[in-house]
Amino acid sequence: MYRQTAIVGIGHTDYSRNSGRTELVLALDAIIAALKDANIAPEEVDGIVRYAYDNVTQAALVRALGIKDLRWYSDIPFGGIAQCGTIAQAAAAIVSGIAETVIVFRSLNERSGVRYGRAERSIGTNDDLVQAAGGRIPAGQFAGPYGLLAPGQVHALWARRYIHEAGLDDEIATSVFARVAIDQRRYANNNPHAMMKSKALDTDTYMAGRMISEPLRLYDYCLETDGAAALVITSAERARALRPDPVYILAAHQCLFPYSEPLPVYPALANFGAPGNIRKLYEDARLQPEDISVAELYDVTTFGIVYGLETYGFAPFREGWRHVHEQGIGLDSAIPVNTHGGHLSEAYIHGMNHLVEAVRQLRGTAPNQVRGAETALVGCAGSSSAILAR
Amino acid sequence: MYRQTAIVGIGHTDYSRNSGRTELVLALDAIIAALKDANIAPEEVDGIVRYAYDNVTQAALVRALGIKDLRWYSDIPFGGIAQCGTIAQAAAAIVSGIAETVIVFRSLNERSGVRYGRAERSIGTNDDLVQAAGGRIPAGQFAGPYGLLAPGQVHALWARRYIHEAGLDDEIATSVFARVAIDQRRYANNNPHAMMKSKALDTDTYMAGRMISEPLRLYDYCLETDGAAALVITSAERARALRPDPVYILAAHQCLFPYSEPLPVYPALANFGAPGNIRKLYEDARLQPEDISVAELYDVTTFGIVYGLETYGFAPFREGWRHVHEQGIGLDSAIPVNTHGGHLSEAYIHGMNHLVEAVRQLRGTAPNQVRGAETALVGCAGSSSAILAR
Repeated sequence: MYRQTAIVGIGHTDYSRNSGRTELVLALDAIIAALKDANIAPEEVDGIVRYAYDNVTQAALVRALGIKDLRWYSDIPFGGIAQCGTIAQAAAAIVSGIAETVIVFRSLNERSGVRYGRAERSIGTNDDLVQAAGGRIPAGQFAGPYGLLAPGQVHALWARRYIHEAGLDDEIATSVFARVAIDQRRYANNNPHAMMKSKALDTDTYMAGRMISEPLRLYDYCLETDGAAALVITSAERARALRPDPVYILAAHQCLFPYSEPLPVYPALANFGAPGNIRKLYEDARLQPEDISVAELYDVTTFGIVYGLETYGFAPFREGWRHVHEQGIGLDSAIPVNTHGGHLSEAYIHGMNHLVEAVRQLRGTAPNQVRGAETALVGCAGSSSAILAR
Repeated sequence: MYRQTAIVGIGHTDYSRNSGRTELVLALDAIIAALKDANIAPEEVDGIVRYAYDNVTQAALVRALGIKDLRWYSDIPFGGIAQCGTIAQAAAAIVSGIAETVIVFRSLNERSGVRYGRAERSIGTNDDLVQAAGGRIPAGQFAGPYGLLAPGQVHALWARRYIHEAGLDDEIATSVFARVAIDQRRYANNNPHAMMKSKALDTDTYMAGRMISEPLRLYDYCLETDGAAALVITSAERARALRPDPVYILAAHQCLFPYSEPLPVYPALANFGAPGNIRKLYEDARLQPEDISVAELYDVTTFGIVYGLETYGFAPFREGWRHVHEQGIGLDSAIPVNTHGGHLSEAYIHGMNHLVEAVRQLRGTAPNQVRGAETALVGCAGSSSAILAR
């Protein structure tokens, strides 16, 4: 699939705490914006890849957009880890000749509607099923009685384990997490789309944030957002005819291994990772970590960045904290991360806004532009990953 | 994707009214049988495509099979119309270079567990959502109060509409439906796997069947089955190294158009079909309908065959009834259909058993073998379709 497909359209709604409209309307606003950006008519769409968690179905979009023949549609389970699976499946649909114009999107009234952060959609209730005679049993039943209900709590367990394994004391760990939060907030302060655009964050404010789930404080956590974002993907050949700056998909795939899901049953960091998965990603992309210009990493919490830097080879094993401690993740660091502000400070659109930002960077139109950006890595802790390029 | 991938393993459980085991165990039994048939070890699997309706998740299979790195997983919405979408997505995963060994499967305790036929899983409650402010509203709410709850009822409405459009009287329509039921039962009587192997069906028995939903009687309807079936798909090159008789995927895709879903809201036959979809299928396969040796068509009811013959170009528009009336669907007809007995008389595994039978036919190992079968078409009323070949 190397360079055979490209992203030719990006679109998103405003990001707010109360959109005032349905998730279907949000999805349509983002998708229509992305199609306009690509100069493609809605009825030309012949593929849609969707997060299984999304409330907006392909059937609803087919009716609303007037799509005549949707030849590919797929759902991807498990919340945020669907992120780059959308890119992988859209590219495969096109490379295989089944579809030509594929939409991927994420739409959610996560702040005014069902709030994951409050466990109003608890982990393990919908997709992460453990089988028993005659029925579906949510895996969450095993962890829920102990109060482990929201993804942010699982991430706190991982962060605690990481601190132990890396041999850190809490003071240094806190300063590392703070650095991620503050660097991402600085990006957001310069991003007109960011929910946190006008809110500064310094060390004192960070430290004054209440403890949410030890060792993570208020500002270590992602926002809760109403909004939607979408991309349009087509063949490389058509992309070049449509616009001068297509963003090519070099490689993309997902990853599921025996201890990755369900989250509340297997929250042990030590078990994490499928050896060879990230190596294959770079091999498919014909690149090495040092060739990546900018990374947009899935940030449920600040810890996700520390861990993500290691997962994707930007820092040695259990040395991601040192990378952040010494140079941060700003534009002057070796690898700028979450240049839009990420989930912590732009918006929480389940990583779809990270893909939008990666495209902006490779078009050279990002508010916090990495100079001469040639390649971008987008990924969710190795659970799904993509490498894009100009 | 033309001939770039192939089916190298098929597996299924016994088909029964009470499996006595969980759907996870059924799925594993079928998948392990398919992997043995392909001579591939379970840990080599790196892709799984699943019906969204299945209760067995990829995560459960990854744990149970010891899969180390599942690089592709996708769900396909909407019950039976996922059928050949599984083939399409598996082939795309392989063609794009993301995965090499992909499993597709369907597992259900549909008879001893949740019975679709009794509307215990009503249409429109899970996937076919209509969006409203702040919530998910099942489309079934619009039809349910009128008693339209099970797919078999919608098919009866289609059959009635078809009878009207084709200008048939009820007597001839009934004889056509009876012919489908009886021809498929004859196939099943010679198929050791068929639930109806030892039960004969003649016109008197057919006519004595009670009316279920006018104009369709008891024997017009599919069985309800506990069981599972699975396929293993890999690259054509690897397939040839594994076995002498790989079954190549020539073409496969899905189809969703504005009036196809949700079923209970759009049950009007007149709106059916996306012009060009089936044409593209044959173009991709580089074949015409007259080149197809055998067809395995999705049969919720006998009517599905009458309509399917037209959808796939085996009979002219509104002349499918005449084709059945004049020659039936047996081995001596122009296009043998559902040579295993289909959903009506082998088992109801949401069309996965149709794919298994197509592979048997192309290996030359079917109980009712079509002599010199070179090509097979499998399809669900144009909603998803595949053309396979030796």
